[in-house]
Amino acid sequence: MLAGQSRAKAVVLLSGGMDSAVCLHSAQAQGFAVYALSFRYGQRHGLELRSAEAMARALAVEGHLFFDLSVEAFGGSALTDAIPVPKGGTGDGIPVTYVPARNTVFLSLALAWAETLGAHDLFIGVNAVDFSGYPDCRPAFIAAFERLANVATREGVEQRPYRIHAPLLHLSKAEIIRQGVALGVDFSHTLSCYDPDGQGRACGACDACRLRLAGFAAEGLADPAVYR
Amino acid sequence: MLAGQSRAKAVVLLSGGMDSAVCLHSAQAQGFAVYALSFRYGQRHGLELRSAEAMARALAVEGHLFFDLSVEAFGGSALTDAIPVPKGGTGDGIPVTYVPARNTVFLSLALAWAETLGAHDLFIGVNAVDFSGYPDCRPAFIAAFERLANVATREGVEQRPYRIHAPLLHLSKAEIIRQGVALGVDFSHTLSCYDPDGQGRACGACDACRLRLAGFAAEGLADPAVYR
Repeated sequence: MLAGQSRAKAVVLLSGGMDSAVCLHSAQAQGFAVYALSFRYGQRHGLELRSAEAMARALAVEGHLFFDLSVEAFGGSALTDAIPVPKGGTGDGIPVTYVPARNTVFLSLALAWAETLGAHDLFIGVNAVDFSGYPDCRPAFIAAFERLANVATREGVEQRPYRIHAPLLHLSKAEIIRQGVALGVDFSHTLSCYDPDGQGRACGACDACRLRLAGFAAEGLADPAVYR
Repeated sequence: MLAGQSRAKAVVLLSGGMDSAVCLHSAQAQGFAVYALSFRYGQRHGLELRSAEAMARALAVEGHLFFDLSVEAFGGSALTDAIPVPKGGTGDGIPVTYVPARNTVFLSLALAWAETLGAHDLFIGVNAVDFSGYPDCRPAFIAAFERLANVATREGVEQRPYRIHAPLLHLSKAEIIRQGVALGVDFSHTLSCYDPDGQGRACGACDACRLRLAGFAAEGLADPAVYR
């Protein structure tokens, strides 16, 4: 507890998926006092959030906040609407599983919490290599958000800049898995699937499952997630 | 209704205060089909939201969404916490009524709704003249958010840029009132006070009341708001 008071604080976005788990471990390995932030945003299943909770507890983070965000009021995404999840593999376009302005909204709320906590470091597990076509997973987005944070806030104005850390930004899925293994991530605590069944078993066919399985295969490792 | 379908859509942040009311009228006067967005964010009083509702109804906007946002989970502001509202006049620093990252969060959610609606224009009633020291009421903030929006979203990436309109940005309070009168704003429908009583009567002493009263006085007009 006393150690936590002297360390710099960081807010880490934690979805319960594999990438944010590696990101969380990375923040903690860098010595930050970690405050994990998860969103309840009308997901079709709550299994991802249970994974997030298990992960945060296993790492004994300083704080873990579940923030209710009724983005379903806006509509527009297969992850929250009744549109079937596509299973044809990743294409060139932006997939219909896109949640409107998702990472912008998530980072904005992370910034609000960071400002209140006195944290100056935000972590987000986006990556631009296997990015499935989401515009808010690109380096240009991270850079633009960091610039925004430093004009939007009291702390930014008063010369204590915010930093947006995206440690997975330039890693392939296989490299993310390799880094996670090195950091001791328990991948059985992570859920990537867009469409798990009632027991939390992954479908193995959606874009997220395909990328994950290919990543483990490239590393010559077995994915500890349960597939149906 | 048919006319509404052919007009460009705009999302307008509507707090129920004077500035956002003028902003709403401005968007409608420019011919946009207006979608008003108000937030329930743990305000100590709901009177401002009732003002917003009355204003949106009087203007027959295309849509009005009240979005629940539990920012009180973060703490850190006199508008949502139990800290007394300061009444000593505006000073040089940033006031304690500051809500963390407020306009960043509000614009992010406006962007999410805009993306879903197919709107490309967002209106926010900030102004940098009588800005009370809020960093997210400055031109640099508006410009940074517009840049962010155009890298964060499918539409931005696909070359249909978003525009963040802040029509009051460079106006004094007196000029805002003058523009509002020209646009037909019913200022009795607006509430600026940080600390109204149970009947919605303004205190006349908080920063927001002082700025408002000085603005009406400068225009030689009586403020139709009820003061206690």
